Parts: sequence; C-alpha cells; structure tokens
Amino acid sequence: MSDLTHFDDQGRAAMVDVGAKPETERVAIARGRILMASATLARIQEGQIGKGDVLGVARLAGIMAAKRTSDLIPLCHPLMLSKVTVDLSIAPPDAVNIEALVKLTGRTGVEMEALTAVTVAALTIYDMCKAIDRGMRIEDVRLVHKSGGKSGTYEAE
Amino acid sequence: MSDLTHFDDQGRAAMVDVGAKPETERVAIARGRILMASATLARIQEGQIGKGDVLGVARLAGIMAAKRTSDLIPLCHPLMLSKVTVDLSIAPPDAVNIEALVKLTGRTGVEMEALTAVTVAALTIYDMCKAIDRGMRIEDVRLVHKSGGKSGTYEAE
Amino acid sequence: MSDLTHFDDQGRAAMVDVGAKPETERVAIARGRILMASATLARIQEGQIGKGDVLGVARLAGIMAAKRTSDLIPLCHPLMLSKVTVDLSIAPPDAVNIEALVKLTGRTGVEMEALTAVTVAALTIYDMCKAIDRGMRIEDVRLVHKSGGKSGTYEAE
Amino acid sequence: MSDLTHFDDQGRAAMVDVGAKPETERVAIARGRILMASATLARIQEGQIGKGDVLGVARLAGIMAAKRTSDLIPLCHPLMLSKVTVDLSIAPPDAVNIEALVKLTGRTGVEMEALTAVTVAALTIYDMCKAIDRGMRIEDVRLVHKSGGKSGTYEAE
Amino acid sequence: MSDLTHFDDQGRAAMVDVGAKPETERVAIARGRILMASATLARIQEGQIGKGDVLGVARLAGIMAAKRTSDLIPLCHPLMLSKVTVDLSIAPPDAVNIEALVKLTGRTGVEMEALTAVTVAALTIYDMCKAIDRGMRIEDVRLVHKSGGKSGTYEAE
Amino acid sequence: MSDLTHFDDQGRAAMVDVGAKPETERVAIARGRILMASATLARIQEGQIGKGDVLGVARLAGIMAAKRTSDLIPLCHPLMLSKVTVDLSIAPPDAVNIEALVKLTGRTGVEMEALTAVTVAALTIYDMCKAIDRGMRIEDVRLVHKSGGKSGTYEAE
Repeated sequence: MSDLTHFDDQGRAAMVDVGAKPETERVAIARGRILMASATLARIQEGQIGKGDVLGVARLAGIMAAKRTSDLIPLCHPLMLSKVTVDLSIAPPDAVNIEALVKLTGRTGVEMEALTAVTVAALTIYDMCKAIDRGMRIEDVRLVHKSGGKSGTYEAE
Repeated sequence: MSDLTHFDDQGRAAMVDVGAKPETERVAIARGRILMASATLARIQEGQIGKGDVLGVARLAGIMAAKRTSDLIPLCHPLMLSKVTVDLSIAPPDAVNIEALVKLTGRTGVEMEALTAVTVAALTIYDMCKAIDRGMRIEDVRLVHKSGGKSGTYEAE
Repeated sequence: MSDLTHFDDQGRAAMVDVGAKPETERVAIARGRILMASATLARIQEGQIGKGDVLGVARLAGIMAAKRTSDLIPLCHPLMLSKVTVDLSIAPPDAVNIEALVKLTGRTGVEMEALTAVTVAALTIYDMCKAIDRGMRIEDVRLVHKSGGKSGTYEAE
Repeated sequence: MSDLTHFDDQGRAAMVDVGAKPETERVAIARGRILMASATLARIQEGQIGKGDVLGVARLAGIMAAKRTSDLIPLCHPLMLSKVTVDLSIAPPDAVNIEALVKLTGRTGVEMEALTAVTVAALTIYDMCKAIDRGMRIEDVRLVHKSGGKSGTYEAE
Repeated sequence: MSDLTHFDDQGRAAMVDVGAKPETERVAIARGRILMASATLARIQEGQIGKGDVLGVARLAGIMAAKRTSDLIPLCHPLMLSKVTVDLSIAPPDAVNIEALVKLTGRTGVEMEALTAVTVAALTIYDMCKAIDRGMRIEDVRLVHKSGGKSGTYEAE
Repeated sequence: MSDLTHFDDQGRAAMVDVGAKPETERVAIARGRILMASATLARIQEGQIGKGDVLGVARLAGIMAAKRTSDLIPLCHPLMLSKVTVDLSIAPPDAVNIEALVKLTGRTGVEMEALTAVTVAALTIYDMCKAIDRGMRIEDVRLVHKSGGKSGTYEAE
C-alpha cells in the first residue's frame, strides 16, 4: 500500500533518504490565482505602465521564496535549484494568475519549490494591495506538471 | 483617492514609515483550506491517532513561518509577534481547514503573518501527502478578522 | 603533525577547500541526552499519548536545524543533506535520549549536522518544559559514528 | 497544577501570548562545557597567543546564534536582544568552560537565547578541532541565573 | 579616551548593552555608487522604460537586505525598522548613484542598516549586469546623515 | 547582441537556467578597501596584537556572508561553495585592503559570493569602528579574477 513517505513505520517524521536516487533533470510547474475587486486589478494594471509595479515585486518575492523552501517546509531537502521563473498575468475582471516553473538536476522533485513560489507571490500581491482591498483571496494553488524522477511525468488533467 | 501604500508617488517600492503610529494591540485571523482525495484525508485522520501526525507538523511549520514573514514578503516590517496559533481541522469528505491567529503589540498590522502561517501550513500538508495525492489544491486563503490600528476592525462578511 | 584545518599557516580562519575530495556517501550519528526532574519526564510521557507532543516538536526542530548548520557554524560548508532522522526516547527515571543520523552524498562529512540536530532537539525540550522545570541539563553530546571520506570509519568506543 | 505552557488544553503546540506581560529588564545566564583530549586543549591555548583563535570564532558564533534563537526553537518569540556576551575559558586539563549572558527589555525571558549561545559556541569548538579530536563531548549545559518577569529570580544552586 | 565599543577591556567581542538607552527616533542615510561602462548604463536606462528593470530589482534587494543586517554583521542588534527606502538614480555617463534611508524608534542607531542596503543594492546591479560588464566597481559607500541617540546629529561634510 | 541574462525577452526578471552547463571548477577573487582616519587604523592594528581583533571578526563575517549570497541577491543560484577565504591587510596610513577568494565545483560562477564576502567584511569593520570614526568609506570593490565556465578566464587589468 502506498503511504506517507515522510513518516517511519512508527509514525515519526523524518527527512527521507534520497541518496540512492539518480541525479536527473526535474521540472515542476505550479499555478494559482488571487481574486480581488476589479478596481484593485485596474490599479495593478496601471503599475504595469510605470506607477508601482506590483507584479514585478511579487515575481521577485516568488523567485526568492523558491530558494527558501527547505527553510519553510520542515521535511523538504535543501536543493540547488538550476532555474526559477514566476509568471504573473492580469486576468480581468478580478484575478491575477500566477505560474511558477522550477528546474533542478538532482535527486528529488521540486514541486514544493514551485508551489512555494506561487503562494509567496500571491501573498506579496496581497501585501501590496491590502490598503485598498482586504477581501482578496488566494485560490486554486496546485501542481500542474512534474517530470523527472522514477514516478514519471504527472500532468494535472 | 486611496492608493497602494507600498509605492511612492513615482511608483517606487518602499517599506513605508510606521514610526509615527501608536503601539496598539493588533490581532489578525486568516483562514484557508486544502482539498484532497478522501482517501488522503482518511490517511491524515489516522495520524491523529498516532501514526504520522501530519497536522502537528503543519501546525508547527505555520507557526514558524509566521515568524519569518518579513524575510519572505519584501516590504513587510520585521515584527516581534506576541502570539501565534494555527488550528487545523479535518473537514470530511475532502478538506483540511486551517485558521491562524496572530497578535502583536506594535505599530503595524499582522495580516501578512496570519496569511503566511495559513499558506505554509497548507504547503506542508501538501509536502507530507504528495506521495499519495498529487492533485491536492490550496483554496480560499483570506483574511477573516483584523483589529487594532487606525483603520479599525475588519470582519470578512 | 596533525593540526586544526580551519586555520591557515598564519592562524587565520578559513572555510577550507573540499573541491578536490571525491563525492562519497557519508553518514554521521550523534547522541546526547537531557536530564530533568522525574515529574517533568512523566509529563512528557503523557504527551506521547496525545496531550502535547514534546518529543514530536523536538524531533522536527532537530531535523530543521540540521539543514541550518552552515548558517550557524561559521566555517561549515553548505551541504545538500540527503537524509536526516532524529530519534528521541524516554529513559526513566530522569532523561530523554536523543540520537540524530545524517546522510550526504558529497565532499565533506556531516558530523556537525548530526551534532546540531541533537543539541537543537535538546534545547527545544528545554524550551517546552522550562515552565515546570528550570533545572534541566543537556549532557553527553558527542559523535558516535562517522563513515565515508578518506579518514575512514570512526566509532566511539 | 503547573503545566507545559506551549500546548493548549487539547495538546496542540502554540506560541503563547506574551502581549499582556509588562516590559521589564530580563537577564539570563547559561553555562556549559566541552571536554576534549588535553592535547586538543593545548592546541586551543596556543591559538590564544596568535595562531588560530578557536575561542574567538566560537564566541562570535555563540553571539550570532543567540540572535537566531527564534528561527531555531519552534515556539520561541522573536526578540530584540539588548546585550549578548559569551565568555570562554580554558579549564585544564581537558575542558573549555562557556558562559553566555543575554539581556532584553521586553515581555518574555531570554533563557533560550543564553542556552543557544552556549551550545552553538560549543559546537563551533567541536567543528574547529574535530580534525584532531573526534571524541570531544558537550556537557552540563544549563541555566544558572534568570531575573526579570513575574516568575522572579532563579539561581541554580 | 574613546574606543571600540564592540570589545570589552580584554579585547573580547560582544554585542554591547543598549538596554539603558532611551527609545528615540533614529534616522540614518547612506550613499554609494557603482561605476560601469557607459554602454552598460545605457542598457540599464532602457530597462527604466520597460525591458528589464535593473534598478527596481536592486531597490527591492536593498530594502530586504536592510532587514537582514543583524544576520550579516556579527555584533549588530536585531531591530524592528520602521521605514526603509532605497533610491537609485542614473548618473551619466558611467554611474548609478544609490541612497538608502532607514528609520527606527529604538535604542540603537541604524547606520549599518542603511550601509547594508546601499551595498546589497550595488551588488545586485553587479549581478544583473555582469554578463555584459565584468569591470563594474562599487565606490564611495559612506554614511551621510545620522540623527537620534545621545551622540547627536552627524552630517558628512 | 550580448544582453542582460537575468531578464527574459519581455523584460521579466528570472533565475536563469544553468542546468545544461557542465560542472567545472570555478574560482572568483574580488577585492575592495575601506578608508579611515589613520588613528582608526592604528587602533585596528593594536587589536592585531591582542586587544579586540577587528580583522578577525570581519574575516569571519565575510566568510559567513559568502554562504548567504543567494539569500541576499535575488537572482543568484544557491550554491555549495567548496572554499572561501577572506584576507584583510593593514595598508597604512589609512586603509584596510580586503580580498576574498571563493571556489566551487558547479554549474555557475561565484563572482557574487566573492564580492559579497568583501563588502560584508568591509561593513563589519565599519560597524566595529564607527564609535570612533563615522567617516569611513568603502571603495573600489571589484572582481579581479574569474576562471572556469564557458566564458573563460577574466583578469582585471
């Protein structure tokens, strides 16, 4: 039976052994979005043309957070990521869509790094816009693609 | 017109001055949930009775992340939080609900700390269960209560 | 003559060159214990059956600290650990025994990571129990096993 | 009955509320020692006169670690320490004694910061001398003094 | 005789006691610049109009670094900064000028935070432009203003 | 045309893909200096003979900062450095010269790590001497050597 790999047979948490896994190229893509009032979205859109680049700040925060993943998620392995991109796009009338791609040549997957980049980018948008919109919501954060490693390729349908 | 406080009048990002604000007791409560297969939820529930405490690990990760918020969110002020709790509850058939409460006696609000605690707790659940369920999704992360400070009390309806 | 490798011939501290060392599998095991009043130990033991899991929190703190070792110990190399486990056991009448195992496929040993995991787990127990017992003491923290690397296998007698 | 303050009545870990506590001057002193071969101690002593200052490096590591305590110990509050000193002294034939003093004007005690400074200073000595002595042991790390706060002054007998 | 406050009378480094100092508003302004080929400067200037905002990234890096100062500078106190701004301006034909302003209501000055913000902003410019210009140089990083605290106001002439 | 590699073709910042680069030995050497009053330099020089080792503290701060580079510089890759040395030398009548050497067997260069080590060592000297000399200035921080990787060897003329 498949089971939670982060616990041993007595239910104790552990950082599991990945030493025997081969080094392969691993890619993960995660997505999410943040919903907001349409006036807030309009304000972010203005920034795109030069007055307060909310999405630029969020992109950077997401990239930097991907590098901190193993500090935040207790049982994640420290990894030397080889690539991180975070893409944010205005989705009228009321959302910003976020997609993060993370790559590694290594022994373990990078799903958590991609998911962390998406959520921290979303949190940063919340932070920058909260003075005008407290009701924003982060939605639908999930893994959409994973490749490399023995479990093969995963694509969210 | 109300505007994005994290940018100056030329659109440049800044960590805004809170020095003139009075020290008051500030509270923020955020909520979110993570959706999963019901078999995954059942597996988490078993842990509650002694074999791999997913929610205990996620709770701790959320509390520790609240303390790291100003490292993650570029324009957040460093704060000396006076209280952090993270509450996770099984919501059959397919969800774990997460609520974080953060308190501070200080000059700025703690919404971001509460939202960060919720999202990192959710990410930790994803990490611990991803071996059996890659399709989990983080949903509906939002602020539900905020008090203290000159903007008064906010309650999400 | 054998000497302190972290200093050059003029006595200046340095992070020494490990680039020429081969990548081998390296393992280190460290142990220690924390002594306390027997009433404190009884209280921890209750947690094992569901009311405040002191050892679960300490285990997680130890694992996370192993990952932070190169941030704490000035001349330690940053490493991509492949496995970390921390085992805590009740040793009546007055002690908790702690053992940490760390693995790496890399160019330098992981003794410091194992020793750091043990001490931070012990400090976390102190923190969680200090309201009822200020007299706890951390004792006998040492390396018990080390393998991999050109210095061969070390076993504490 | 006195109990573990870091858990709520259902046994869930939390960072407890210190917001209602008054700001007072708080002091904590912790001590510990590291035992080693007398040849190792002799080698450290040479450094005191200019060739590889092991104790100077350990002192700095201890001071810096005190500032990181809330990152390491899961339920510790972040604190703005007002003073940290770490004192290391050669104790022939086979030990280095370590004492750390930490001060804060704030709402919670600084025992954990003092204990963390002592243990990280000891770990740093281990790191710097491990090439010549793998059998070193950290011993007798404990709180010796605590003042400030409503629990009054504590002196280890 | 005035002396180095970070050492005790036996020359041992310490984080000095600021607990007795009053909380006052403290401001520090630091400046520096990075010199480069004029073609590099032209390339940065293009980014200002939408294609790769080097200065925006550097500004954010400087602000975030100010918050990390006590992690980087061994004897700096951890501080809850109330304001950080970093201003970067194109200075033809071959320089970017950087100015950081940091504010705190607290017990110790914020010079180091302002100087750290300037240098990390400069390093970030180097990083982003190094593919086209390895010869860039960071110059003239210094404190230009300091106020608050018992030593009074300092203005660089 | 050669261009800024940290931005994509739409000008968005990214951590670029180094996964396809071969692992080679890479070395970078950076230099800089800090100017000060000659009385300040004299005071530092005294420390060399036992009363407050400013340069020893700065050396350690520089080494530790090299390890934190990817935390500070937004688009830097996390790296497992194999060697870091920081060399500080008194340059009468008014300067301390700083040189950092960093080595890595990996897929990307270590210029930023060497430059970060130099600047943080300089900032630490500023911190330790600021009580007696506020007018110190950091000057001439630049890359002097880089080897390994496909761009070949760079030597500043």
